[in-house]
Amino acid sequence: MRQKFYWQDKPEGCNEAVWRYEANPILKMNHSPKIARLFNSATLVTDDKIVGIFRGDMPDCTPALFYGESKDGINWDIDDSGIKIFEKDGTPFIYEYAYDPRLTKIDDDYYIIFCADVVGPSLYIVRTKDFKYYEKLANGFLPYNRNGVLFPRKFDDKYLFLSRPSDTGHTPCGDIYISESRDLEYWGNHKLLMTAPYKKSYWQRLKIGAGPIPIETDDCWILIYHGVNSTCNGLVYSMGVALLDKDDPSKVLARGRRYLMTPETDYECMGFVPNVVFPCSALCDDEGHITIYYGSADTTLSIAFTTVNELKKFARENND
Amino acid sequence: MRQKFYWQDKPEGCNEAVWRYEANPILKMNHSPKIARLFNSATLVTDDKIVGIFRGDMPDCTPALFYGESKDGINWDIDDSGIKIFEKDGTPFIYEYAYDPRLTKIDDDYYIIFCADVVGPSLYIVRTKDFKYYEKLANGFLPYNRNGVLFPRKFDDKYLFLSRPSDTGHTPCGDIYISESRDLEYWGNHKLLMTAPYKKSYWQRLKIGAGPIPIETDDCWILIYHGVNSTCNGLVYSMGVALLDKDDPSKVLARGRRYLMTPETDYECMGFVPNVVFPCSALCDDEGHITIYYGSADTTLSIAFTTVNELKKFARENND
Amino acid sequence: MRQKFYWQDKPEGCNEAVWRYEANPILKMNHSPKIARLFNSATLVTDDKIVGIFRGDMPDCTPALFYGESKDGINWDIDDSGIKIFEKDGTPFIYEYAYDPRLTKIDDDYYIIFCADVVGPSLYIVRTKDFKYYEKLANGFLPYNRNGVLFPRKFDDKYLFLSRPSDTGHTPCGDIYISESRDLEYWGNHKLLMTAPYKKSYWQRLKIGAGPIPIETDDCWILIYHGVNSTCNGLVYSMGVALLDKDDPSKVLARGRRYLMTPETDYECMGFVPNVVFPCSALCDDEGHITIYYGSADTTLSIAFTTVNELKKFARENND
Amino acid sequence: MRQKFYWQDKPEGCNEAVWRYEANPILKMNHSPKIARLFNSATLVTDDKIVGIFRGDMPDCTPALFYGESKDGINWDIDDSGIKIFEKDGTPFIYEYAYDPRLTKIDDDYYIIFCADVVGPSLYIVRTKDFKYYEKLANGFLPYNRNGVLFPRKFDDKYLFLSRPSDTGHTPCGDIYISESRDLEYWGNHKLLMTAPYKKSYWQRLKIGAGPIPIETDDCWILIYHGVNSTCNGLVYSMGVALLDKDDPSKVLARGRRYLMTPETDYECMGFVPNVVFPCSALCDDEGHITIYYGSADTTLSIAFTTVNELKKFARENND
Amino acid sequence: MRQKFYWQDKPEGCNEAVWRYEANPILKMNHSPKIARLFNSATLVTDDKIVGIFRGDMPDCTPALFYGESKDGINWDIDDSGIKIFEKDGTPFIYEYAYDPRLTKIDDDYYIIFCADVVGPSLYIVRTKDFKYYEKLANGFLPYNRNGVLFPRKFDDKYLFLSRPSDTGHTPCGDIYISESRDLEYWGNHKLLMTAPYKKSYWQRLKIGAGPIPIETDDCWILIYHGVNSTCNGLVYSMGVALLDKDDPSKVLARGRRYLMTPETDYECMGFVPNVVFPCSALCDDEGHITIYYGSADTTLSIAFTTVNELKKFARENND
Amino acid sequence: MRQKFYWQDKPEGCNEAVWRYEANPILKMNHSPKIARLFNSATLVTDDKIVGIFRGDMPDCTPALFYGESKDGINWDIDDSGIKIFEKDGTPFIYEYAYDPRLTKIDDDYYIIFCADVVGPSLYIVRTKDFKYYEKLANGFLPYNRNGVLFPRKFDDKYLFLSRPSDTGHTPCGDIYISESRDLEYWGNHKLLMTAPYKKSYWQRLKIGAGPIPIETDDCWILIYHGVNSTCNGLVYSMGVALLDKDDPSKVLARGRRYLMTPETDYECMGFVPNVVFPCSALCDDEGHITIYYGSADTTLSIAFTTVNELKKFARENND
Repeated sequence: MRQKFYWQDKPEGCNEAVWRYEANPILKMNHSPKIARLFNSATLVTDDKIVGIFRGDMPDCTPALFYGESKDGINWDIDDSGIKIFEKDGTPFIYEYAYDPRLTKIDDDYYIIFCADVVGPSLYIVRTKDFKYYEKLANGFLPYNRNGVLFPRKFDDKYLFLSRPSDTGHTPCGDIYISESRDLEYWGNHKLLMTAPYKKSYWQRLKIGAGPIPIETDDCWILIYHGVNSTCNGLVYSMGVALLDKDDPSKVLARGRRYLMTPETDYECMGFVPNVVFPCSALCDDEGHITIYYGSADTTLSIAFTTVNELKKFARENND
Repeated sequence: MRQKFYWQDKPEGCNEAVWRYEANPILKMNHSPKIARLFNSATLVTDDKIVGIFRGDMPDCTPALFYGESKDGINWDIDDSGIKIFEKDGTPFIYEYAYDPRLTKIDDDYYIIFCADVVGPSLYIVRTKDFKYYEKLANGFLPYNRNGVLFPRKFDDKYLFLSRPSDTGHTPCGDIYISESRDLEYWGNHKLLMTAPYKKSYWQRLKIGAGPIPIETDDCWILIYHGVNSTCNGLVYSMGVALLDKDDPSKVLARGRRYLMTPETDYECMGFVPNVVFPCSALCDDEGHITIYYGSADTTLSIAFTTVNELKKFARENND
Repeated sequence: MRQKFYWQDKPEGCNEAVWRYEANPILKMNHSPKIARLFNSATLVTDDKIVGIFRGDMPDCTPALFYGESKDGINWDIDDSGIKIFEKDGTPFIYEYAYDPRLTKIDDDYYIIFCADVVGPSLYIVRTKDFKYYEKLANGFLPYNRNGVLFPRKFDDKYLFLSRPSDTGHTPCGDIYISESRDLEYWGNHKLLMTAPYKKSYWQRLKIGAGPIPIETDDCWILIYHGVNSTCNGLVYSMGVALLDKDDPSKVLARGRRYLMTPETDYECMGFVPNVVFPCSALCDDEGHITIYYGSADTTLSIAFTTVNELKKFARENND
Repeated sequence: MRQKFYWQDKPEGCNEAVWRYEANPILKMNHSPKIARLFNSATLVTDDKIVGIFRGDMPDCTPALFYGESKDGINWDIDDSGIKIFEKDGTPFIYEYAYDPRLTKIDDDYYIIFCADVVGPSLYIVRTKDFKYYEKLANGFLPYNRNGVLFPRKFDDKYLFLSRPSDTGHTPCGDIYISESRDLEYWGNHKLLMTAPYKKSYWQRLKIGAGPIPIETDDCWILIYHGVNSTCNGLVYSMGVALLDKDDPSKVLARGRRYLMTPETDYECMGFVPNVVFPCSALCDDEGHITIYYGSADTTLSIAFTTVNELKKFARENND
Repeated sequence: MRQKFYWQDKPEGCNEAVWRYEANPILKMNHSPKIARLFNSATLVTDDKIVGIFRGDMPDCTPALFYGESKDGINWDIDDSGIKIFEKDGTPFIYEYAYDPRLTKIDDDYYIIFCADVVGPSLYIVRTKDFKYYEKLANGFLPYNRNGVLFPRKFDDKYLFLSRPSDTGHTPCGDIYISESRDLEYWGNHKLLMTAPYKKSYWQRLKIGAGPIPIETDDCWILIYHGVNSTCNGLVYSMGVALLDKDDPSKVLARGRRYLMTPETDYECMGFVPNVVFPCSALCDDEGHITIYYGSADTTLSIAFTTVNELKKFARENND
Repeated sequence: MRQKFYWQDKPEGCNEAVWRYEANPILKMNHSPKIARLFNSATLVTDDKIVGIFRGDMPDCTPALFYGESKDGINWDIDDSGIKIFEKDGTPFIYEYAYDPRLTKIDDDYYIIFCADVVGPSLYIVRTKDFKYYEKLANGFLPYNRNGVLFPRKFDDKYLFLSRPSDTGHTPCGDIYISESRDLEYWGNHKLLMTAPYKKSYWQRLKIGAGPIPIETDDCWILIYHGVNSTCNGLVYSMGVALLDKDDPSKVLARGRRYLMTPETDYECMGFVPNVVFPCSALCDDEGHITIYYGSADTTLSIAFTTVNELKKFARENND
């Protein structure tokens, strides 16, 4: 029997496709003396628990990756010593900082995808079987790239991967590409999946990036992603959704012109980077209940609830 | 008898010339499924009601214009289908998005002035008799221009218009100009009215723009406007006031060196664009009561109260 | 009999539509102690001579306008005292500096159009009957605008005008608009004529601006204009040509995808602003001989030759 | 007996080296009709009271300096007429605006150091004996410089001074230098003390600046300073601490890699410049109790508490 | 017997490792009516002739690729119709523009590597057997990337490739990476080869990019590359040299701190992009004679001469 | 008897106050294998020869300082090993690079002032008696500062110094300040001498910097300086002149609104940094003959001639 995670019914009178947890944020500032802010986080249900890889910014503001476990997806036991990553030859993987992880499982292995700064922001894939030993695969992607997301299964004999190539800094641009590989290390046949300026959809005008590992359903993949708008007072990060073809995810079936969620609450509008909701993972059970984990204002970790049907309906109805 | 609108007496102990409504904002986020944020709004008293043209940003973040009605100026019935505008030949007026309306009446016609992006931000004038059919006049202004305000009567045989020509983007500069026309379509004799850097008045150092339709009084016009300051964390929009000559509004009689109102409250300092108060209309009755409608943080609609005498006194006392 | 101007036959073996004068530049640096550089210049054939309005940058680098006369269009007698301009009420027109003139005649009056910096770069129209008294018309155009060009006759009862609205500085963008007026002072019905990014025509990718007064032919108007490309080492100004409808010049009949002339010679590639050819006038006689006057490197004045037929053929053959 | 100032014990369960006053901010917006915001402030304990020099931004947003007195350091009586400064020849010192004061006493004189804009931001030293007559010393520092801090005693026959030379605007860079003088007017032997990019300490990556007058202890000087990080939504100002050699403060003994305090509360994260904590003074008694005064969001004045031992321990433990 | 190409002995008194052809440039502006400027060019010796793939900018300034043949490497017969490229399924490869080719042969196939703008500048590999039919391989590299160079043989079963990932525009940064593939379509194991800021070597401070196909010698590979410096008047492109390990070219054996050649002559310092020398190919015979082809000022094609021994000596002597 | 230096009479028909040497440049590119470009140079007449400190950019583009000697000021014997500078304690002075020297003699010592990059561009003063041992004085100036010029005698007991504080990079701004010292190490009483935007004098609009050591005459000091204008294709450096009060050089008696010399020739308009004339020294004999040494295009060293009377007359006649 699968592990259960926390989920709430849609509140009375709510017309939105996604609804916030009333006790947000679930992880607040100063989680421990070693971690000042925990926010963009990758969670996954296993047989006996829920595991997570967390971006934690330390009190010197260095971003790093941490491992945690939970019984319900809300109360977390986080190891604040930070995960250690090794090259395939057993030497430590050396980097400036690491952030914005995603987490999935293929066959018997867990894969963490994250961005690290070695020579500019780049994407790396790390394999683990036990969340104790973490092995980095050979560099499959050139800098500069962010928001890497691996599909949770092969398509024939190929892995698929989403990423957002762009530049070295606070990236003023960026589209989502889809890439193929037979071995997770040599990648090619890259294609443009979705562009940032999209119709008159201003919330996703500046740049976009894939969010959680896509959710497979009976007739399509659900891709939750973030889109960014630029105002005279900085960037606003919102959350959106698209549907991809079940057999060939390089085909976009539907893409929501509206945002799913935009910063509205105090904990999203105020903090280290105001006006940010940044989804990195989503739990989904057999009945289609979905709990989305998203960073709020680059300061705290929050969750929101939805269902497979809500997201499909939203993407299709807003696909004009 | 003229329609009454909501107004509150000055609170005990208040030393300011303008005081906020205690139940602000009057229109909150997610007003309807089709409108995410209603903020910069143009209201006008008619014989039997108060009408308004609203900037509403839709859930894809496209700004558009909406029509609404109210009995008291606080509770609004807004048609969320959006107004449709036609060229003089009956074809639809095609534009990317529209925002920041102003509204006035001359003779038997209502005029809406707003900014739309066709080939860069430009000002357009629309005429309606019934708020059902909206006809756009020929393009009277070149891009790039914003914050257009039409005086509510002719001066001899000429219409007068305020605008802020500038550039294509988030406008790092801008002064207010005054222009003339005999037919609302061909404009000329443009003159500089007020400049943005003004003495040591840093709140209006970067740029300024006319706000509500000017209010005619027995001895002058009251011009409420916005001024913008630049900090290392973005722009701050405040509200100020100037007095213009009754017969020749191209003459500035007095201009407040101090701001009338600057962002102070949660709903002004936090939101889609933090630190913005942006006035677009003001209702005034025969006794000189004034209710100002202003966008707060580009997220909600708020109001504040004052009187003709307060504004005149403020502008004259701060005219040093 | 009309005044003749200097013109040369096309050299043997030349395949270009325009050919340079072999003794370019015709006006060199340090023309007089009061004028350091004479370059962007507006010439016109009158009954008994050729007249010119010249941009001259003085030894403090201030641009100003000067008047000159010539018998052949090559040897010029220039009055280095600078022209003085008056408002309609007889008071002097006060401005920071003035540059890039165009010159035409309608009925009995000569009109000079130029850019001056009063409150940012703006276009002004000046009328003279005798090149002694210069009267400025009321401001017909808002800032920020450059490269204003007046058609040399009315269309029914309307004047037509080309301009390039843009911004305050070294203008990183700009398209050509066409405007109408009944009186040269009140302008309206502005329409976009030609955009800067044009197909895969990179020499005119960044911005464009009308050059000489358009040349009327039996079946169209010839518009010579400049286009600008941006390289990592600055801007490159080239010259191009378009054909406009004879009765309604807001219709573009043909537009050359290729440039007519691009900086190639020492005097075009080296100087105060390298890599600039900037046409401001063109003389044309009854037999279709054309002499184009263009500023070279913002340092000297050069000329090039062509014919009506060459330009028409070039525009049409390159209109793909 | 020395004047007592307000101080609070460390709350139960607090693990931080510095703890906020629970009733922050101690000075709120609109302190008086003449002062809109009081924030970056320099306080000092004298025999019979606590005195302060305050940055107050007036309702036209001009920053200026004000004098105030207090019995407890929390409740302040502030003279809102602004201090007047004179050159040594008795003429008024003319400047655009003044801000960010520091205050110390050497021998019988009080010294105020502040930044003023005369020809770009520059540091000035003012001497007063009575907080009634303020005399400016000869210009000892060239523009462009900010955050000047004078040590409260001589070292042999020399004064020592910290400053942050940089540029004209919102300073995208800056390190702390230490300088010497025999007479407070002629300065030299400048040395680099601490740089802004510091190990993997991102909160102080962009620029740093000395805060309060350094606190002398039995074995070192405690230097509280601010560090700045840049996000896609603007700058974040945090507070840090370093220990300097008691006899030769140009030697850094320890420097905290972690921040002491970063914006977390509403009054720090929201306001005229969000996400700013900016310390300008610290009171310290014989028992090592310390009250830090810091500007919060460039909008209000707040305080926080610590001790000499806490700061020393923090700097040394985080000196890796 | 191998085809001979033009080469000149080192002039008397010359102390440089590389010497220019005295009759430079070999291809001047306006080569044909269809090609305005031919400059960055890839040449290769075949059995019976010398072939070349040329970047030609057309008179609308669109860069494109052209094929040419020569008997001596100086006099070229260029087909100005432009090469046509096909996808593997036979459909045409659609792109905005193409530039900066390199050319090599592996086994029986020729490979052209170039940059094209489809969705931002990206690298593409094209295969041809006869310079008549050109087939593009599947996209092996994500945007944004430039200066792709393929090694002319396999290393065990792997191809090696140099590239410079960077950004969308005039690239203000860039290092050289080395990548591996088994099939020329799926690439991975990317490693940083050389960085742009290199010691106190300011001519290669801003960015670098591989130039000609590396030259294999008895004990190493010779890599000629370009380095870029930034001045207040734009970029300066110079030429440098490094030596790579014969068996594992990811190891740099020596790298010249000095430039090999920097813009000095008229045809290098003046033109469409002044101050550019940009090498794209080098012919080398069995005796070690080398003729380097380099674009001069993005306007003309020039050559320079050297030898294998000169380059090795230069790289080693300047490797401090 | 004093050493003679090369000087030429004013050519026939020349109306300028300064005339170029007909055989310019006197030092060309590639002066020696160790020095690629010699340009901004400081010369001084001694009893038996003319000495010079030269900025030489090496073939890796690092700027450094070199010593040279000459009999006539035109033919130079330059030691290409570079000068070595020591701290007062005998340890070597460590810096990234050094450039733009000035040279003067006070009493028995020679002083070199130059800019070096240690922690950003800063000014340093070096003393030598014999051009063999160079001793750096204590740091008298904070970064960021350039174009330091020391007056060649004391005023009462004080040294005077000109400098241009600005910022870290290619300085988009800058005015000249004058500072005082009693010991050349502790500096103060800084005053603004001349600002960059100066009337309508556009050639010196962006920034200015002192050039040669000021020349003392019977009634004033002659200050030759450079001024910079910004065009869309980069900066243009011209040369100007001002007259300072003989007893109190902080008083400007006259300042030329026109430039003295602007880039006109091939060797000034073309090179590493096009359009630069940059004077760093001027020799003057008892009869008032003056030879100015100036860097041309940051590539070569050129000279120009004038007289004391020409410069005085020019400054006074253009002081309107």
